Amino acid sequence: MSLADQILKGDIRSASRLMRQIDDLDPAATAELRALFPHTGKALVLGVTGSPGAGKSTLTDRLVAQYRAQGKSVGVIAVDPSSPFTGGAILGDRIRMQGHATDPGVFIRSLATRGHLGGLSRATGDCIRVMDAMGREVVIVETVGVGQDEIDIAQLAHTTLVVVVPGMGDDIQAIKAGILEVADCFVVNKADLDGADRMVRELTAMLELRHAVREKPMDHDAHHRMVRAKAEGRPVEAERQGPEEWEPPIVKTVAARDQGLPELVKAIAAHHAFLERTGEKAARERSRARSQFLSLLRDRLLRAGLDRLERQKGKLDEVAERIARREADPYLLADELASAAS
Amino acid sequence: MSLADQILKGDIRSASRLMRQIDDLDPAATAELRALFPHTGKALVLGVTGSPGAGKSTLTDRLVAQYRAQGKSVGVIAVDPSSPFTGGAILGDRIRMQGHATDPGVFIRSLATRGHLGGLSRATGDCIRVMDAMGREVVIVETVGVGQDEIDIAQLAHTTLVVVVPGMGDDIQAIKAGILEVADCFVVNKADLDGADRMVRELTAMLELRHAVREKPMDHDAHHRMVRAKAEGRPVEAERQGPEEWEPPIVKTVAARDQGLPELVKAIAAHHAFLERTGEKAARERSRARSQFLSLLRDRLLRAGLDRLERQKGKLDEVAERIARREADPYLLADELASAAS
Repeated sequence: MSLADQILKGDIRSASRLMRQIDDLDPAATAELRALFPHTGKALVLGVTGSPGAGKSTLTDRLVAQYRAQGKSVGVIAVDPSSPFTGGAILGDRIRMQGHATDPGVFIRSLATRGHLGGLSRATGDCIRVMDAMGREVVIVETVGVGQDEIDIAQLAHTTLVVVVPGMGDDIQAIKAGILEVADCFVVNKADLDGADRMVRELTAMLELRHAVREKPMDHDAHHRMVRAKAEGRPVEAERQGPEEWEPPIVKTVAARDQGLPELVKAIAAHHAFLERTGEKAARERSRARSQFLSLLRDRLLRAGLDRLERQKGKLDEVAERIARREADPYLLADELASAAS
Repeated sequence: MSLADQILKGDIRSASRLMRQIDDLDPAATAELRALFPHTGKALVLGVTGSPGAGKSTLTDRLVAQYRAQGKSVGVIAVDPSSPFTGGAILGDRIRMQGHATDPGVFIRSLATRGHLGGLSRATGDCIRVMDAMGREVVIVETVGVGQDEIDIAQLAHTTLVVVVPGMGDDIQAIKAGILEVADCFVVNKADLDGADRMVRELTAMLELRHAVREKPMDHDAHHRMVRAKAEGRPVEAERQGPEEWEPPIVKTVAARDQGLPELVKAIAAHHAFLERTGEKAARERSRARSQFLSLLRDRLLRAGLDRLERQKGKLDEVAERIARREADPYLLADELASAAS
């Protein structure tokens, strides 16, 4: 029986093996992924992202407990920033999740893949598919950091939670352009710390500003109701003419003390209902399919291009040496190699 | 006269124009870059990276002043995290550098490029080449964030400064695997805050740990001298059998009050001397050439692959739709398109 067949029956060891192959960029994974692909598309995929130190792992852990209490099977993919040189993954955060170690309904895997040839978001997308195909009802992808990789990964999710903590006001400035655009829900974690309300106000102001820039004005009362609801952590849908829009709610949690989690689960469910009601879910599926296909294509094209380079011009390192000496023209070489692909 | 000819004469407006073309992914930039390429390789390239809020822009600003005082012409490339959706760049940090606005010896450009088809590190590498070709003796690349993009960009530099601030101990844990591997010099900025010495000790401990894992033991006295020197912010080269190795110094600064800058410039110079003495500089040039060529190749191959997709299978969005409905197999499609490139 193939790995894929075992995985379709829910076998955890086979799924682990395939995800290790994906993480190791083992070409053998492709045949299994092809066999699994028609069986994917059923899981609810959640992204959890935000700055280091925001308590994402603890929040994920508590979120898992909530879904387990609902009787749902859960998969967690923890994407670790790893060295491009040593390839090592940070395991510290994972230890916090060992409370679920004996629960077969919780399946946790860390991903370490980095670097040019692989593509972290491609590996993450493939691992989501494995967990989806094996029947996990909720798949949570936790990423560390605020870079492009994390934005790409957030786009693999149906609902993306952006986790912030009080007192990181300066950081908001720095992260807002990228990460905040992908937020379906803000979580102000460690909300027992000073400055939690200020953080909620700052996020609210930021959302309003974005609103004002993007949209036609809504009437004053509707706007007031929306602002109030957001400040109280209730999910909000804009009351306005035109297509229904999602206003990211702001939920306060203290994950370490298990506070605010039911509200968060409710906000996620409200977002999911919004996605289904408006047809946005299908649009996100298309967008996921598009970005996953692009990652895959980029990876395969580069591998093929490098094979071609090696046959025609020599090994990559030798070519790089000639480029470094200004004896070869990288722009010309790239165009020559690409012309075959077109 | 072509843009490239103007740039080789040092013309700032032409350089600005070409860098805007690079940032906009304008294909017209390629011919100019090809013409400039043989004239590159002379500038000292510094990378400044670290978490948001570490004061990188202020530090860069003060570093520029140091090099200007040495009579060197300087280029600064500020890589802003920008939304993959709106494409907007954050301009706030740039304002801090306006002290140099009237100095023709300082040329500052912000880069915003993000997203799949472009590649931030490729655009950054091309802009470094423009500044190099136009005769800037020092080119400083400042990045915000700690993701893969920033690691890629750090690898474009001869010397990479990783800027940290006291009190971000938790973050160290999160960022060390990636960013710390690329550090040639640590800068503990805002060193007048509580916890600066603790931060120096933590970094020192981390470097020692890495050392212990990687290397044969050095004798006790040599080790002691190295630890002392690092704690005092002096550049250190390991005293050991075997090839000479660089031990990243830890320099304390208060950039906002212009403190510690001469020591930092000295540490950078020591690193550069090390690079030249050991042949490591040529090795880094090769590695830069390699990664820049890979970025370029990946970009060109993907463009060509997408052209081919559109001719043979339909527009990307239509193909994505078929994939989302599980009517098309993304793995098979990618392999078919890549086979032409091999």
